[in-house]
Amino acid sequence: MFALVSMTLPATLQADGDIEAGKEKAGPCVVCHGKDGRAAIEAYPHIGGQHEAYLVYALKAYKENLRRGGQAAIMQGMAANLSEQDIADLAAYFASLERK
Amino acid sequence: MFALVSMTLPATLQADGDIEAGKEKAGPCVVCHGKDGRAAIEAYPHIGGQHEAYLVYALKAYKENLRRGGQAAIMQGMAANLSEQDIADLAAYFASLERK
Repeated sequence: MFALVSMTLPATLQADGDIEAGKEKAGPCVVCHGKDGRAAIEAYPHIGGQHEAYLVYALKAYKENLRRGGQAAIMQGMAANLSEQDIADLAAYFASLERK
Repeated sequence: MFALVSMTLPATLQADGDIEAGKEKAGPCVVCHGKDGRAAIEAYPHIGGQHEAYLVYALKAYKENLRRGGQAAIMQGMAANLSEQDIADLAAYFASLERK
């Protein structure tokens, strides 16, 4: 049977995200992902209301150049200088938005 | 100024997705991503109502092992044997679901 693997990040490895701080830092993100996390451009994902832990995974993968292909080059640049706290705050903010 | 790059896939490179065919093929996907494309597990992304072109990008990146880190190993396995048409159908199906 397909083994359902639940791989949540160990809490010690992940900073606690601050939604308000994330909102302050989200300026560059909304250019492509939209003010409410709904991307206007088809090639960019909606991220509003996405799972917080997944957003942390994705941002870290871009930061560590583990994601290539498609728009990855843009996101690598965006994530390169993000700190652990920035990533946690941005993930908390966009996860807090309504999925619409 | 940040150059907004719109990189939609050239139509010739992308098969037309068939929503019903995608629904038939979605069995393995819903185990992690949920029947309505809402993942129950925090580390997996919601994909219901996601942009179709983005889903095609992401599936191709997993298939071509261009995405690593986080859950990528699972997705590489899932995408490895998908055809161009499978990818288009699955993307069309999950994009057609309501974002809730």
